[in-house]
Amino acid sequence: MREKTIDQLIRETWMAITKMYNEEAAKYEGTMSVGYVLLKIDPEIGTPSTALAPMMGMVVTSLSRTLKKMEEKGLIYREPNPEDGRSVLVKLTEYGHKMRDKSKETVLQFNQKIEDNFSVEELNTFKKVSKGILELINKRKIYKD
Amino acid sequence: MREKTIDQLIRETWMAITKMYNEEAAKYEGTMSVGYVLLKIDPEIGTPSTALAPMMGMVVTSLSRTLKKMEEKGLIYREPNPEDGRSVLVKLTEYGHKMRDKSKETVLQFNQKIEDNFSVEELNTFKKVSKGILELINKRKIYKD
Repeated sequence: MREKTIDQLIRETWMAITKMYNEEAAKYEGTMSVGYVLLKIDPEIGTPSTALAPMMGMVVTSLSRTLKKMEEKGLIYREPNPEDGRSVLVKLTEYGHKMRDKSKETVLQFNQKIEDNFSVEELNTFKKVSKGILELINKRKIYKD
Repeated sequence: MREKTIDQLIRETWMAITKMYNEEAAKYEGTMSVGYVLLKIDPEIGTPSTALAPMMGMVVTSLSRTLKKMEEKGLIYREPNPEDGRSVLVKLTEYGHKMRDKSKETVLQFNQKIEDNFSVEELNTFKKVSKGILELINKRKIYKD
């Protein structure tokens, strides 16, 4: 069998992470997306709803669905932004705080296991290559237009 | 600012690749998923439709939608599997062959650029860490159940 290409390997790794995070989230009747939004909300002062989508690289409509679901589950509430009357702050409920802590723990535990299993040099090279690939893509160095 | 965690870096890299491939596919009125299915179909003998979903790590229903779209665009056709009367072979049309070649070229060009920009040692370490993370996840070494 031919060796996997780099993009296949990245795809497979990300899909495995997605599956794993969704399985962990399911233990608390959540999803990876919900956990991800929880982590992006400032636990003290809340976060403007308009700031969340770009922070997550998501489109506004699919984030709206997630926020609505999170409101129904009692994880978040919305209130007018005191700094900007036209925008709305998304804030964590007490339950939301608890689930945010859980999400954080889940992410930290995964990253800790990775750190335990590879040397600092290996991880630095992994980061260097990942960032390099990102840069090649973002600077449009791959394809001629 | 705190350094990105490994999972964030993988997420960001995969999202950038997705965006890039979709942009390339759009030049031929396609999508990354369509290109991906084209690459999975055996260009000579076709591929049983039931074999495609697991090959792609996709659920059958979302693959069905993609296959229907591909049939409408004249990229593929279906015929009874001579080896198994209950299953259907997905085969490439002439246009499908052409677009499969395009998809292959797009993937190879990306991977070639990556090979040109990093040393063999760096890429070997990148692969080693990726495969190691996959193994940690698949062997359920991250979380205690």
